[in-house]
Amino acid sequence: MTSASLDFATSVFDKETITLGGRREAIVRGGRHLFDRLPAAFEGVNQIGVVGWGSQGPAQAQNLRDSLGGAVKVVVGLRAGSSSVSAARAAGFREEDGTLGEMYEVIAASDMVLLLISDAAQAEYHRELLAALRPGATLGLSHGFLLGHLTGIGEEFRSDVDVIAVCPKGMGPSVRALYVQGATVNGAGINASFAVHQDVTGRATDRALGWSVALGAPFTFQTTLESEYLSDLTGERSMLLAGVHGIVESLYRRYRDHGMSEADAFRNSVECVTGPISKTISTRGLIGVYEELDADAKNVFAEAYAAAYPIGLELTSEIYDEVASGNEIRSVILAGQRLGRFPMGKIDQAAMWRVGQAVRADREGHEVPLNPFTAGVFCGVMMAQVDVLLERGHPYSEIANESVIEAVDSLNPYMHARGVAHMVDNCSTTARLGSRKWAPRFDYLLSQISYPDVDADTVDRTPFKSFEDHVIHDVLRVCSEMRPSVDIFVE
Amino acid sequence: MTSASLDFATSVFDKETITLGGRREAIVRGGRHLFDRLPAAFEGVNQIGVVGWGSQGPAQAQNLRDSLGGAVKVVVGLRAGSSSVSAARAAGFREEDGTLGEMYEVIAASDMVLLLISDAAQAEYHRELLAALRPGATLGLSHGFLLGHLTGIGEEFRSDVDVIAVCPKGMGPSVRALYVQGATVNGAGINASFAVHQDVTGRATDRALGWSVALGAPFTFQTTLESEYLSDLTGERSMLLAGVHGIVESLYRRYRDHGMSEADAFRNSVECVTGPISKTISTRGLIGVYEELDADAKNVFAEAYAAAYPIGLELTSEIYDEVASGNEIRSVILAGQRLGRFPMGKIDQAAMWRVGQAVRADREGHEVPLNPFTAGVFCGVMMAQVDVLLERGHPYSEIANESVIEAVDSLNPYMHARGVAHMVDNCSTTARLGSRKWAPRFDYLLSQISYPDVDADTVDRTPFKSFEDHVIHDVLRVCSEMRPSVDIFVE
Repeated sequence: MTSASLDFATSVFDKETITLGGRREAIVRGGRHLFDRLPAAFEGVNQIGVVGWGSQGPAQAQNLRDSLGGAVKVVVGLRAGSSSVSAARAAGFREEDGTLGEMYEVIAASDMVLLLISDAAQAEYHRELLAALRPGATLGLSHGFLLGHLTGIGEEFRSDVDVIAVCPKGMGPSVRALYVQGATVNGAGINASFAVHQDVTGRATDRALGWSVALGAPFTFQTTLESEYLSDLTGERSMLLAGVHGIVESLYRRYRDHGMSEADAFRNSVECVTGPISKTISTRGLIGVYEELDADAKNVFAEAYAAAYPIGLELTSEIYDEVASGNEIRSVILAGQRLGRFPMGKIDQAAMWRVGQAVRADREGHEVPLNPFTAGVFCGVMMAQVDVLLERGHPYSEIANESVIEAVDSLNPYMHARGVAHMVDNCSTTARLGSRKWAPRFDYLLSQISYPDVDADTVDRTPFKSFEDHVIHDVLRVCSEMRPSVDIFVE
Repeated sequence: MTSASLDFATSVFDKETITLGGRREAIVRGGRHLFDRLPAAFEGVNQIGVVGWGSQGPAQAQNLRDSLGGAVKVVVGLRAGSSSVSAARAAGFREEDGTLGEMYEVIAASDMVLLLISDAAQAEYHRELLAALRPGATLGLSHGFLLGHLTGIGEEFRSDVDVIAVCPKGMGPSVRALYVQGATVNGAGINASFAVHQDVTGRATDRALGWSVALGAPFTFQTTLESEYLSDLTGERSMLLAGVHGIVESLYRRYRDHGMSEADAFRNSVECVTGPISKTISTRGLIGVYEELDADAKNVFAEAYAAAYPIGLELTSEIYDEVASGNEIRSVILAGQRLGRFPMGKIDQAAMWRVGQAVRADREGHEVPLNPFTAGVFCGVMMAQVDVLLERGHPYSEIANESVIEAVDSLNPYMHARGVAHMVDNCSTTARLGSRKWAPRFDYLLSQISYPDVDADTVDRTPFKSFEDHVIHDVLRVCSEMRPSVDIFVE
């Protein structure tokens, strides 16, 4: 894909051009002061149907309802007999006032349908789901997975509906939590990308932007549906979930082998990543982590970075190829068909993650160190993902959000509060499958190649040479200026 | 695939029907006393071109030449400028007597062409290679990979040539080593499967059987080209390479965590698998390992078996699906395209494998224990592969050879002599890629699910209940009666 040709026009919001890494990108800045423009953005839409109650469903249905304040009816659609009915009711969606109903009925009665059911369900039921849309309706997705699946099986979307996407760069609980915090700090929220894949109504762009603003996105950047799923699936299989999981497993074991106690090894690996490293990157970027270190620690960082970067580059390139070839999506679908027979086991009983439970329960009085080796490995692999997405032509906004911002502002804070194992055991099926598949790959290559190189003092420092002057630092600086400095709060 | 419909007719060799697990399968028993029938089997073939000098090439070219004793000319074909020329010359193939030449010239001049170049090269050059064949020639493969690739891209073999396969169930060095040992012990060799995919000459079956007998196969069983690549790729990604690698890594770490010294942990994991476990299975089958244990050890074995079997079943099912869907072959091709930029790193500098070097160098006086936990895990995962292949309808001969016999008679003895890391770093590119991809998956699931279950005393023993009466024990007993009791000797 190429990002050079992206542009859009909006008659409702203020398009702003920012310069990221020397390239100009058009974006829309969000905020609660824009909520009074939402009726104009959704002109012609009497009802928005939000279908599904997984990760994004609850967050998006509530944010939309709260932002619209009744101007457009927001109705939740669930399959008959869904176990999520009580949760949707508890969130204020009720059959009796027409804001909760059966999925296909809701789709048929809505002018705009946000399809937020699982990837596997989208793949399995897409024919029935698409058939249920009104002619001229707007179909909204929060992920390009369905496009990837349709491409893989040689099918297309119906030509008589809009197809748009708004893809929050954070998991649903973060989208809701930051929105709620945004009530007191205007602009707090999770960034989102948007894409207009088909525009038959002529209103697709404003509907997408309105949707994103209503979710609370501090800034909304443009992408294509294809670019979205390529970067999103790659990101979650690399630094957003699988990569970080593999990294901390390999580091924990290394520190244990070096004689650290279980608790110290956990603090120097997992806690260090999800705590100080993520917090620093969130406000001061990758370079901020390095700047925080003294000279000796900088040297350790540089060596670890240089040893880990090639592994990150190799694996993230492999992941990207697997996603782009359709292999990864086919794997997810095949895995879905096996889940009835082989349910995914939980990993949280493994020794390391039991240590983690104890460490989190005993945080008082234990400072989490900024371990320079851990920081170097983490930043090295993260930068490798940045470089792979750059190489493949993704826009800077997308790269920064998929590689860095989503990790440090949405996922890692949850991992810090509840543990990496909790995330791996509780995120979307597609992401969980990806994590199980790719985390061990990162672990093995780091343990078999990078760390022995460090121990033998044979690390080629070349990859570190481009770290300090990397374009991503400027990109992250500009991005961080566009959000209020409020950190997500996770209990 | 279904094995029920397989049958063949031969006018040269003696077809024999054996009963395996209650099913009748037709096979041909090999031996040096049959070499005088080879000219009849190769009637109409004046020259056999052996193309490639990787794992199978050297073994097959030499075995064929030695078995044929000049009755048919055996010529090695290499690409221009190949670095293998000197090795081929050292093995007695020379330009000056016309037994060594440029690949395409050798193909064009041969009546039968054995295509033994790497899978990646087959995929890349198949159009040119197939075009070079004489009309009416016999194309021989030792692996169904090319069929899998052609299927994936919607192409087929030329319709005017025979397409046959003889697939030794061992790596090239074993095929040669046991053949050489067979000079003194008639019948020593590596079993092979054969398949006739296209028969335009009407002589395809006898040419395939002649080829297999000439390689020294103690017995040759029938399969289809599709069944071959499904089971072969699945096998090397499960118990033949990746599975055993992941198993021993997980066990080594477990034993270290339990306080064993590095050397003892290595002996109780790697050495135990490649030594006593493999040796026992080779002659007395999987049940033989169990029978060797006392009552307490039997209990440990049963628990470990029951904990590991479900992981083996889950992962081997996933592997099979990935192979059958074409994903795995596409992955191998994509990986091949990345190898120039990202050469595969070696794993032998990782701490565990350095311990292995020391342990192998210091074997004298150190008995390798038959650790019942290691044996239970190994046999549990191996049995899971047997069950997956059974479920998918493969013939018993193929299942026994791909799951058990190839491991214990060909691969594990090499691993025992030179280390698992040596195997992983030196086998075919397709197998190496598979090992890197799948070994960590076995390791993670065993470490995260099976071993915590054992430690918490929550293992469901059900999978073990079908162990003692499993049909594979009878199958292995019949198979082992068909070979002389000579073990491969590896320096």
